[in-house]
Amino acid sequence: MKVGFIGLGNMGLAMATNLVKAGQQLQVFNRTRSAAAELERSGVPVAASAAALAADIEVLITMLANDQAVEAILFGQPDAPGALAALKPGTIHISMSTISPDLSGRLAQAHAAGGQAYLAAPVFGRPDAAAKAQLRIVVAGAAAAIERCRVLFEAMGQQIFVVGEDPPQANIVKIAGNFLIASALEAMAEAFTLARKHDISAAQLLAIVNGSLFRSPLYENYGGIIAEERFEPAGFALRLGLKDVRLVLDAAEAATSPMPLASLLRDRFLAALASGYGDLDWSALSRVSADQAGLPSVIPPASS
Amino acid sequence: MKVGFIGLGNMGLAMATNLVKAGQQLQVFNRTRSAAAELERSGVPVAASAAALAADIEVLITMLANDQAVEAILFGQPDAPGALAALKPGTIHISMSTISPDLSGRLAQAHAAGGQAYLAAPVFGRPDAAAKAQLRIVVAGAAAAIERCRVLFEAMGQQIFVVGEDPPQANIVKIAGNFLIASALEAMAEAFTLARKHDISAAQLLAIVNGSLFRSPLYENYGGIIAEERFEPAGFALRLGLKDVRLVLDAAEAATSPMPLASLLRDRFLAALASGYGDLDWSALSRVSADQAGLPSVIPPASS
Amino acid sequence: MKVGFIGLGNMGLAMATNLVKAGQQLQVFNRTRSAAAELERSGVPVAASAAALAADIEVLITMLANDQAVEAILFGQPDAPGALAALKPGTIHISMSTISPDLSGRLAQAHAAGGQAYLAAPVFGRPDAAAKAQLRIVVAGAAAAIERCRVLFEAMGQQIFVVGEDPPQANIVKIAGNFLIASALEAMAEAFTLARKHDISAAQLLAIVNGSLFRSPLYENYGGIIAEERFEPAGFALRLGLKDVRLVLDAAEAATSPMPLASLLRDRFLAALASGYGDLDWSALSRVSADQAGLPSVIPPASS
Amino acid sequence: MKVGFIGLGNMGLAMATNLVKAGQQLQVFNRTRSAAAELERSGVPVAASAAALAADIEVLITMLANDQAVEAILFGQPDAPGALAALKPGTIHISMSTISPDLSGRLAQAHAAGGQAYLAAPVFGRPDAAAKAQLRIVVAGAAAAIERCRVLFEAMGQQIFVVGEDPPQANIVKIAGNFLIASALEAMAEAFTLARKHDISAAQLLAIVNGSLFRSPLYENYGGIIAEERFEPAGFALRLGLKDVRLVLDAAEAATSPMPLASLLRDRFLAALASGYGDLDWSALSRVSADQAGLPSVIPPASS
Repeated sequence: MKVGFIGLGNMGLAMATNLVKAGQQLQVFNRTRSAAAELERSGVPVAASAAALAADIEVLITMLANDQAVEAILFGQPDAPGALAALKPGTIHISMSTISPDLSGRLAQAHAAGGQAYLAAPVFGRPDAAAKAQLRIVVAGAAAAIERCRVLFEAMGQQIFVVGEDPPQANIVKIAGNFLIASALEAMAEAFTLARKHDISAAQLLAIVNGSLFRSPLYENYGGIIAEERFEPAGFALRLGLKDVRLVLDAAEAATSPMPLASLLRDRFLAALASGYGDLDWSALSRVSADQAGLPSVIPPASS
Repeated sequence: MKVGFIGLGNMGLAMATNLVKAGQQLQVFNRTRSAAAELERSGVPVAASAAALAADIEVLITMLANDQAVEAILFGQPDAPGALAALKPGTIHISMSTISPDLSGRLAQAHAAGGQAYLAAPVFGRPDAAAKAQLRIVVAGAAAAIERCRVLFEAMGQQIFVVGEDPPQANIVKIAGNFLIASALEAMAEAFTLARKHDISAAQLLAIVNGSLFRSPLYENYGGIIAEERFEPAGFALRLGLKDVRLVLDAAEAATSPMPLASLLRDRFLAALASGYGDLDWSALSRVSADQAGLPSVIPPASS
Repeated sequence: MKVGFIGLGNMGLAMATNLVKAGQQLQVFNRTRSAAAELERSGVPVAASAAALAADIEVLITMLANDQAVEAILFGQPDAPGALAALKPGTIHISMSTISPDLSGRLAQAHAAGGQAYLAAPVFGRPDAAAKAQLRIVVAGAAAAIERCRVLFEAMGQQIFVVGEDPPQANIVKIAGNFLIASALEAMAEAFTLARKHDISAAQLLAIVNGSLFRSPLYENYGGIIAEERFEPAGFALRLGLKDVRLVLDAAEAATSPMPLASLLRDRFLAALASGYGDLDWSALSRVSADQAGLPSVIPPASS
Repeated sequence: MKVGFIGLGNMGLAMATNLVKAGQQLQVFNRTRSAAAELERSGVPVAASAAALAADIEVLITMLANDQAVEAILFGQPDAPGALAALKPGTIHISMSTISPDLSGRLAQAHAAGGQAYLAAPVFGRPDAAAKAQLRIVVAGAAAAIERCRVLFEAMGQQIFVVGEDPPQANIVKIAGNFLIASALEAMAEAFTLARKHDISAAQLLAIVNGSLFRSPLYENYGGIIAEERFEPAGFALRLGLKDVRLVLDAAEAATSPMPLASLLRDRFLAALASGYGDLDWSALSRVSADQAGLPSVIPPASS
């Protein structure tokens, strides 16, 4: 298929590369052109603009940082016309970024007006999973469009979950999932702090509780990172975690739902940012709990 | 071994029965004697008082509801002398109730003064796990005493985790574990409420998030209960959940540790109690989130 | 002075009327023209559009519901050109609505580009204070412009507080003030619930605590409303209270400041909305605390 | 009247001195005898023990640090018989300490059994108010006993509030009052942090908001302390503030009332303790908000 791919960050570059490997006919665009250098060397055309890329494709895939970036690319900016106006009727836009359900709904409307199909297809998985084509992809939109794109999803992910026909539902599932992970991070942070204060190591508590109760690879993985405070390199930056919690709170407010645990997470993320942890892995949220209890880092400072 | 067992509730009766099956020489005591009827019919001696039971045993096991019950049994009450004074030096007391680390520490001191060993050995598992001898037992205390009692633990549980030599540490692990479970309940409650408000079923969100992220039997089990609101019969009553959160908060305060998520849970449990959910399973905590967002029960009311 | 006034709601109509009484040369605009009927009968010209009104005035005053309304009026909409483009250089725009510091900053920039002065001048006070020209006005902007407009402020308010030269600072003070009031509402709500649960009337607790400690007319006034649950008519609607808390949280996030009490208020307001209290006075926030503790209304239901 | 006074701390010494000045026939007891030195020099008898003091008095007044101290003095300890057993029938015990409603209820029962009257009469006011006999006294208990003691209350305070006949009600009012103050501290802390982050001084925000809205001497006083961070000497130590919040939470739990703002305060006090602020004035709670937002102290460090 003729696929236009916009957004070549940590995740997007790996996903685009997997599409090329799977034999798809790709062209790409990235605001910072240097990110496309490797693909370009291997023969993938690099468009001069989002609008140029959009003109002659069957499927547009966007994998961008946030709502603002997606809006700028699709709707355009004073100095850069958007992709939306350039898309032919019949094109399918697969929006794989973690964006708000609200923007996802507006994109669905805009594409409907332009005769295009719109799929929301956010992903679970870190850059290493993207590289191995092991993402989990949550899709919502018209069934026929999903089926047409299945071969693309399969080139990027190991599991495809179809949520329903209304695109924002996939975005809700994505941000609800991130909320559940962040909640587990905070819970472990507080439990580990309590344990350490009573001379039980975080690792020991984790081994018992996960071994006997949760038996979850996610708890094991993140619990281990927290226990050892291995927050660099960041698999998912803490400041992006705050962004996703804000999306959750906005979606909850739109639905008149109090979410006190999400509110708590928001304040903890803000405290983490104010402490300078914004570029660490989001599991560094755990340092807020430790700091507030007066616990030092588990990592001894390097001797000089 | 000559074992005295006090506390024949849902959990204790099953545990005592398994000890008998394993060939241990049991005698039992329960404040309400009727709970001992079945064991008595199968030939297990029933003591007239805690003190009477304590007089001639090698190991005392207590499995009681809370701190107050354990204090009454061990230290006695105006009308009922306690077990402590009746125990011979050399006896081992295994305290398997979920009690405060503080009381556990005081029991350790009292037994040390009396020449007895004291093990804290709280358990994870519901009554059905107790019946199948599949409890997970978290033990702390003197290594030699633990080894002597290992045969008893193996008759009641499937896993034994030794935390250390200081008994209250086992109690910390137990209540930290319950805190982690309750945190997961609240997180699922809020996420499911958000999903339902956006026309996504709780079951669907759970299947995707647990299938792709947590892969935890605990999330699957409790998530299913919450999604279907199957809160009766209670595996673990909600009002006992509140008790355990209070133990967590007390232990945190003793260690000067803020635990805002535990504080949140406390308020949610109180709201649940005020709504009349105290005797439901503690996963009914999820109704607080649903109620506050104005969501009706997923269970249609029975037609008349 | 030639003053254009846009926004004739509960507050704006009273403020505009006071300017007329003070001899200012007013013309007005309101999206729903009927709100201007009374002023029109007394000879005040009613403009056909915001842009028409803006063309020939010295001072533009806006008193609108929220950011969206102010943006629509100033920047225009597809079917209605905005006031901004029509303003002559040298005009002063006094923005008295409770809007975000962020929008206030953008307006300041836009007006600077157009050669106009911009003052942020939000007010404290309910409609009855507006009617009596007893508002408290918090102003920020260029000192010269403030001095030129002082006569207008004095026609509408009893106190004028000059915060500084940067307009968004006045908006910060306004929303911080509303945050402090909402915090007092929640604190009284919880304290009164505790008292009522222990058979002490809210009125008695209020009389003692305010009489001996706070001695604040605000506590006395709102405390009395809460004690008697006189939530209608709404002096300030609860759903507007939620809007202001959101402005606080946004401003806090922009400044990387955790505000857990503001987060708590947000969740309480959402629970209040979900309970159907959105059109009551914002002191009905207190019903959330009472509801969650299972307390009935203090107002006996009317007999039929 | 023959009055026995126990507890000569900051508050108690001033109160006892005022009773002497008013011509009452005092004898005193304090665990640390040196605190009584000044009174002793002016001729006030100092009892050797609480029990000795209790033997021949008409009224017993206790002004002690917390529940534990009151229990030790009244009910006795292994090495020190309590006052309770030594009191004659007909004596009135006025308990002026800030203690739990629960202990107050138990004292009421114990005194009823001994034929004594029991009044709970906690006070609002700092040491300077105690010195000037300007305390506010909240009393509950039998009306006749209150009337008999009115002359004593008038010697110590400027206002006497009679709550009802059930002593614990006065304790509820006292701790609810402290909860309301602590809530105002936290609200100001967060608002001031927000203001400072937006380059508005705390003093300026306070002047506007209190001047136009609250008009409360309490806000003015505490707000000024927070704005200037004058936390020493402590009028009321932060660690005692935590104690009172705990009393509130316990009383709320006993009444099945969620109090999320009280829970928030508890966590903030714990964070303050962990930061080493326990001996500062409880308004130093505000440093937690400032710290978490990364704001430095307003007090420049002394140059060396």
